[in-house]
Amino acid sequence: MKLNELPQTNWRLASRAQRMNPSFIREILKVTERPGIISFAGGLPSPKTFPVAAFQEACAKVLRDDGQAALQYAASEGYGPLREMVAAMLPWQVDPAQVLITTGSQQGLDLVAKVLVDAGSRILVETPTYLGALQAFAPMEPEVIGVASDAGGLDLDDLSRQATDARFLYVLPNFQNPTGRTMSEDRRAALSQRAAALGLPIVEDNPYGELWFDAAPPPPLTSRNPEGCVYLGSFSKVLAPSLRLGFMVAPAALYPKLLQAKQAADLHTPGFNQRVAAEVMKESFLARHVPAIRSLYKSQRDAMLAALAREMQGLSLEWNAPDGGMFLWARLPQGMDAIELLPKAVAQGVAFVPGAPFYAQQADSRSLRLSFVTATVEQIDAGIAALAASIRAYARE
Amino acid sequence: MKLNELPQTNWRLASRAQRMNPSFIREILKVTERPGIISFAGGLPSPKTFPVAAFQEACAKVLRDDGQAALQYAASEGYGPLREMVAAMLPWQVDPAQVLITTGSQQGLDLVAKVLVDAGSRILVETPTYLGALQAFAPMEPEVIGVASDAGGLDLDDLSRQATDARFLYVLPNFQNPTGRTMSEDRRAALSQRAAALGLPIVEDNPYGELWFDAAPPPPLTSRNPEGCVYLGSFSKVLAPSLRLGFMVAPAALYPKLLQAKQAADLHTPGFNQRVAAEVMKESFLARHVPAIRSLYKSQRDAMLAALAREMQGLSLEWNAPDGGMFLWARLPQGMDAIELLPKAVAQGVAFVPGAPFYAQQADSRSLRLSFVTATVEQIDAGIAALAASIRAYARE
Repeated sequence: MKLNELPQTNWRLASRAQRMNPSFIREILKVTERPGIISFAGGLPSPKTFPVAAFQEACAKVLRDDGQAALQYAASEGYGPLREMVAAMLPWQVDPAQVLITTGSQQGLDLVAKVLVDAGSRILVETPTYLGALQAFAPMEPEVIGVASDAGGLDLDDLSRQATDARFLYVLPNFQNPTGRTMSEDRRAALSQRAAALGLPIVEDNPYGELWFDAAPPPPLTSRNPEGCVYLGSFSKVLAPSLRLGFMVAPAALYPKLLQAKQAADLHTPGFNQRVAAEVMKESFLARHVPAIRSLYKSQRDAMLAALAREMQGLSLEWNAPDGGMFLWARLPQGMDAIELLPKAVAQGVAFVPGAPFYAQQADSRSLRLSFVTATVEQIDAGIAALAASIRAYARE
Repeated sequence: MKLNELPQTNWRLASRAQRMNPSFIREILKVTERPGIISFAGGLPSPKTFPVAAFQEACAKVLRDDGQAALQYAASEGYGPLREMVAAMLPWQVDPAQVLITTGSQQGLDLVAKVLVDAGSRILVETPTYLGALQAFAPMEPEVIGVASDAGGLDLDDLSRQATDARFLYVLPNFQNPTGRTMSEDRRAALSQRAAALGLPIVEDNPYGELWFDAAPPPPLTSRNPEGCVYLGSFSKVLAPSLRLGFMVAPAALYPKLLQAKQAADLHTPGFNQRVAAEVMKESFLARHVPAIRSLYKSQRDAMLAALAREMQGLSLEWNAPDGGMFLWARLPQGMDAIELLPKAVAQGVAFVPGAPFYAQQADSRSLRLSFVTATVEQIDAGIAALAASIRAYARE
């Protein structure tokens, strides 16, 4: 039964809404909520890393010192001291006036699309790319083009071929979702030059950049050409996701338009949350807190790599070894399909996300994403063994 | 200098963004932030009504009892217990599964437009209507039609004339922003029947409904035809705006599409805020808290009506006497323009919002909106005297 034909109602859907389908990942995550399932599916930070005590103190202080102001409507740009902190923590010269606080960095994607995308506009993305970005851009009805990419990121020759009339390139250079890959300094320098030569604006998304294991990643693309880039950041992975605090750094020429789109979308990001986060982060809190997250996630990545090496022997599974972030990318043997594997894996008690939904165009149906941060090391060992068992069962079919 | 012609950048704006202009009200509010200005301009609830102590307790309890879960990613639909509270507080039979928690009710307007509006779609609004709705709908590029309205709300004959092919009617039946007017039971019954006969869906916005002074307003339009209406509500006026907590109640046929648009917009509304609000509101908190807000705002409305009667003698200013909410609507003598009056009023130390931006089409340039809730009674007395002085000065020109 098609919704827009329901006889009892006269609702007529926008054409974009007629094309909306339930999120594939969302449906999978429902399965993984069953008790007993070990999930490598979700992109959930480890709750062990949430600074609960610091939030307790900060909430109490914000409400005690300035409770009425903290609960009132606030400026659409964001809370001044938080905008200053954001500007100060970034590795290039940022004026706090360029910082727009967003309701998670997901909202930044919605605002970018509203300001830069007409129906049918070409926008370029990596292959594969963040599914949530594809979903956020979709209401503005762009033509999304996947640029060929390798283990080191974008293929610059394909980028040149695809760039004509593109409104922007959307790119996650650090510990990318879904692949975990990171662009080298050489690739960044070349991409930055190529984009400038092509007149191609860049939307740089960096939710995972702080989660490096052995060495910080090279400087952001935006630091190389601030006027040609919009930069998106997030506090979800270094503080807590539930606050829904992200930010954009935008060139002065774009900022007023993004601000108007922000105001129309939700007036402002919760002011209480912004004040609490600023209170938590004062006195260099992140400099003490983030190393513990890095260390935990590195040990969990190591556990997953060790489990994969141990359990996948003889199965022709390929995987990478990310230098940071939350995700590892794997590829099934020829002839297998990750979407077909999923129910078999769930039957064995483990879940993952098939790679296909992350592709703007032709999907690699053998690919899959494994998160190594939510499960414990013991769960990682048991879950990878279960995954290996499901691949063996699939191979016997 | 037009942004999209800046030589240094290659940003090409979406056509909707080229049409965006700085919010008129936003610019005015900047003026009113000057020290010493008495502002009747903003729609800011009185901070005296914010239950700071209840928030202190609730934040502490939520973080103490279940801190890690409260800080983790959460469901896009919203926090289950809060959705149940919303369903239970509404005066018709609502299944919690129909409730979608939004990042303020402003976000509900963004989601409605994404799901129901194609470029060029006709949507109907009151004359005048909430400026923020016009801004939220604008990115989807509708044709917005103002339906003729009188002091009692919509003119149903004009509604019938305008309804052909309209996607929906957007209406605020209670203590409307900007006029403060309320639709009678008779008008609601007739509107509900007329809309059903026309096959016209309704988007009903009710942020102020709880703020009645002497008697509760008649039941919502949605309660008369839940399948033909989307209902938007807010906690900004009964708890605190800074949390950015609103909600939608949507027919089962629309809910999945609104949910997907919600997920793409910001993944979910801050889970911590939802848990804190649910904790504050348990044990019938609002039943004890809201009467105090009503009583305060009623006394402030009375103060403003008394000051107007006293100060505006002989000035031919017209104004109404709202039965609730936050705003009063006034009309300058013939030949005067509220936008021209504004700088003269600011020079006298008082600010208001001219009515013109609230009109979808032909504006009544004599109209203006006065908020009676943010200023104190003493400020209301002084501010209305200053406003009268500015009108006198304008009349002498």
